[in-house]
Amino acid sequence: MQTEIDKLAPGGGSLMIAWQLKGKRALLVGGGEVGASRIGHLLGADAHITLLCPEKGLHPTTKDYIAKYPNRIAYYDRRFTGPAELHKMDIVLTAIDSPATSREIVDLCRQAKIPVNAADIPEFCDFYFGAHIRDGPLQIMISSNGNGPRISALMKEKVQASLEGYEGLALSKIGQLRAELKERVPEIGGSLGRKRMKWMSKICNEWPLIDFTLLDSAMIQKLLDEGWEKDRVPTFTEVCSKPRPLGVEDSSKGHRFGSNILIPIAHFVAGAALMAAVILARRR
Amino acid sequence: MQTEIDKLAPGGGSLMIAWQLKGKRALLVGGGEVGASRIGHLLGADAHITLLCPEKGLHPTTKDYIAKYPNRIAYYDRRFTGPAELHKMDIVLTAIDSPATSREIVDLCRQAKIPVNAADIPEFCDFYFGAHIRDGPLQIMISSNGNGPRISALMKEKVQASLEGYEGLALSKIGQLRAELKERVPEIGGSLGRKRMKWMSKICNEWPLIDFTLLDSAMIQKLLDEGWEKDRVPTFTEVCSKPRPLGVEDSSKGHRFGSNILIPIAHFVAGAALMAAVILARRR
Repeated sequence: MQTEIDKLAPGGGSLMIAWQLKGKRALLVGGGEVGASRIGHLLGADAHITLLCPEKGLHPTTKDYIAKYPNRIAYYDRRFTGPAELHKMDIVLTAIDSPATSREIVDLCRQAKIPVNAADIPEFCDFYFGAHIRDGPLQIMISSNGNGPRISALMKEKVQASLEGYEGLALSKIGQLRAELKERVPEIGGSLGRKRMKWMSKICNEWPLIDFTLLDSAMIQKLLDEGWEKDRVPTFTEVCSKPRPLGVEDSSKGHRFGSNILIPIAHFVAGAALMAAVILARRR
Repeated sequence: MQTEIDKLAPGGGSLMIAWQLKGKRALLVGGGEVGASRIGHLLGADAHITLLCPEKGLHPTTKDYIAKYPNRIAYYDRRFTGPAELHKMDIVLTAIDSPATSREIVDLCRQAKIPVNAADIPEFCDFYFGAHIRDGPLQIMISSNGNGPRISALMKEKVQASLEGYEGLALSKIGQLRAELKERVPEIGGSLGRKRMKWMSKICNEWPLIDFTLLDSAMIQKLLDEGWEKDRVPTFTEVCSKPRPLGVEDSSKGHRFGSNILIPIAHFVAGAALMAAVILARRR
């Protein structure tokens, strides 16, 4: 029988993590189509990129990136030359056609203890990429663990369709609230750190997500004065310094009403109307 | 104006990756509630775990893990003692109440170039965890980049609800198909590797996901004989050696029919029936 622990730890998977690259150095070998997508991921994580690729191998998107981010991408019009390229690198990605060269780079990275990914060669990789959704501070990754990358891409579309579109904005406002709270209570960890986390968690549970999108600096201060300082969660209307814009009035209930009730009602009414028309027509 | 590249590379995020830990060594310092959840993640990724925690600090779930996986978890009833603990470790996680000890461990890891995560102290982390969904080979991670972990947890429920429930099984069958194809065409990378990827991608595009759940070994061989060898994608009925079980007959169309058409029809019919009843009642 499968126990709770078996379900928790089925094995055969990966450790799904959000790697921090702000101010870190990334070496990318290869600037073709896959290389261009890697640059997008690396820039999104604020890495400093060194790109090695003969100019004729550059994808148009890669060229756009190089032109647009000269301070973020150091581009060299040549192939990988040897171990010295790895000096001070924090992460290495290969996106080239030669498995032999990828193997060579991967072996050098292992010796230097630098995490490495070789595109299309899972056997060589310390980590895999997956299908990726980004909306401001929100990031979602879908991995098939190499079983079906195309399925991950199809599932990404489905997950994306299940989002409302304001999650990223709401999260960035929650991040501002958290940052302001940390200004007031700068303790790292410990009992105050835990209390801070619990209060943040509580307001996230009680407020509909869409309400956070309307927070401004004044409201955040009021929320901390009336909420954190008094160890409670104020309602949105308590801290709201301006009327809610039309269409947001009903907050999440509005959305639920829209998708779950209105459409069935419309179908019900359409059915009723058609039946009425049929019966009344027969009566004449 | 925001260009396509700005949307691709907005900065401020993480590199979302699926870290490979099969056969690797992980040091976990702390076995409380957070520690127990870390063990789940590490076992799910097939890591060998060394756990340091005074016995009185063990969460009941941690105790269950230690009892159930004696060959996967080496448990020591003590605190972290110093740099020697990091010997041969590939990844280190702390889940303890003392930020000072976490800081000490993190500094040692940085010197030794070992990736490290300190629970609840994002400032110390090389990587973050997020809300996590697992179904066989399918893994989905939702990260708020530290802005609102509780929101990630709420979004996880939503994403989970958007899944059908057979994605993991379908993906594992696709993985079997891919493995059998690699037996026939073992080339790593190169033009044959690309052709293999394209064919896999094509069948994933053309077959409804649920059909893959019905694949068995004989069907996989037939699919490769009639498909890969002839550079085409056979239909499901061409390779199916047994009748589809009832309820799967219509494959993905069946599902779409179920959720998108049947419910509106039901509401339409209900509306029509009610109106008929009302009108007919008035006629009597």
